[in-house]
Amino acid sequence: MSKAAIVSMHVIRRLPSYYRCLKELQKNSVNKISSSELSEKIGVSESQIRQDLYNYGNFGKQGYGYDVIKLYNALKRILGLDKTYNTIIIGAGNLGQAIANYTDFEEIGFNLKGIFDINPRLFKIKIRDAKIMDINILEDFLATNKIDIAILCIPRDNAQVIADRLTKCGIKAIWNFSPIDLKVPDDVILENVQLSDSLFTLSYRLNEDDLFKRIKKEK
Amino acid sequence: MSKAAIVSMHVIRRLPSYYRCLKELQKNSVNKISSSELSEKIGVSESQIRQDLYNYGNFGKQGYGYDVIKLYNALKRILGLDKTYNTIIIGAGNLGQAIANYTDFEEIGFNLKGIFDINPRLFKIKIRDAKIMDINILEDFLATNKIDIAILCIPRDNAQVIADRLTKCGIKAIWNFSPIDLKVPDDVILENVQLSDSLFTLSYRLNEDDLFKRIKKEK
Repeated sequence: MSKAAIVSMHVIRRLPSYYRCLKELQKNSVNKISSSELSEKIGVSESQIRQDLYNYGNFGKQGYGYDVIKLYNALKRILGLDKTYNTIIIGAGNLGQAIANYTDFEEIGFNLKGIFDINPRLFKIKIRDAKIMDINILEDFLATNKIDIAILCIPRDNAQVIADRLTKCGIKAIWNFSPIDLKVPDDVILENVQLSDSLFTLSYRLNEDDLFKRIKKEK
Repeated sequence: MSKAAIVSMHVIRRLPSYYRCLKELQKNSVNKISSSELSEKIGVSESQIRQDLYNYGNFGKQGYGYDVIKLYNALKRILGLDKTYNTIIIGAGNLGQAIANYTDFEEIGFNLKGIFDINPRLFKIKIRDAKIMDINILEDFLATNKIDIAILCIPRDNAQVIADRLTKCGIKAIWNFSPIDLKVPDDVILENVQLSDSLFTLSYRLNEDDLFKRIKKEK
């Protein structure tokens, strides 16, 4: 069992979209926004937004709405985006390299400190500032470097073994791209990237019209 | 504006996790499950599950729970996973190649028919059964091949131009990995992959204990 969250995961999973919306508003120099406008922009009901934010304090005033900069800064702090994080990537295949090259993460405070692989041919390559290193020195590296997040970009078969090695070395957060249910200790945070969920949303929507025609006929 | 969904997107976004859970249950030869057990497994309240599913018909019986195989098959059909889809990937960089190599999508009916790039050095390469082709022949290719979903794996700068070319050729669904808000016609379905949302969930959870200590102190 991975670490349990204090607030419901459903609330937590809505926060990034709030943050993205407020960031956009702030970029466009909007100073305040009514709760109905915010609700429309985010696609979540006014009362749900109010309820979600209430977990973290009092935001928004009756009859005024939300102060954009204040709420943006609050969400940034709530999401832990006022800090920086040291990350490593395990697996320097296409996916690992794609993530390593994604400079946006660096810009928002996720600093890549190293990449690990089993393939000796990759060991001399550097992606931006991060070296690709032998997975055999993972334990040594983690003993001397403070790493907050390990990003798992390896095939399913090795994922559990590597996750065990990481958590044994004290890694407390794993961002997992391997399509497998990892088992991690109770104090470790595991975030699985479910790419297929997003793809299924697309296939759902490609069929939604037909689906409701069929449902209507069956009634 | 991309195409509007009939059912709330929040409901739609919960369906893939229902599906994954039922698939697992079915694989483990579980025949029926109570609504409270299902609720616990999925992490969504019993009434929410009931309400969500009610959009698509009557599932589950009072005092019995859910018939696993029946619900699994229904969800498969609802998500459009009883059909197959032809896909193309735009962008044969690391991310494009990673997605192309991800055989799991093929297994569930998403068949990759081609990959497009601007780099002539890649044009002779084949990833599994799909050729990498010159982006200049995109329109010709789409005129003679029925493609359901275009997967956008290109840098932000070119994404809108390519999206315009795709929709002009009649592409009705775009799975977008570029970190940009694309504009598409009203009848096109756009699904943005927000990798950073998942990363922000992780940074949130790394800070949640400290956050609530601070909130408690401020009260």
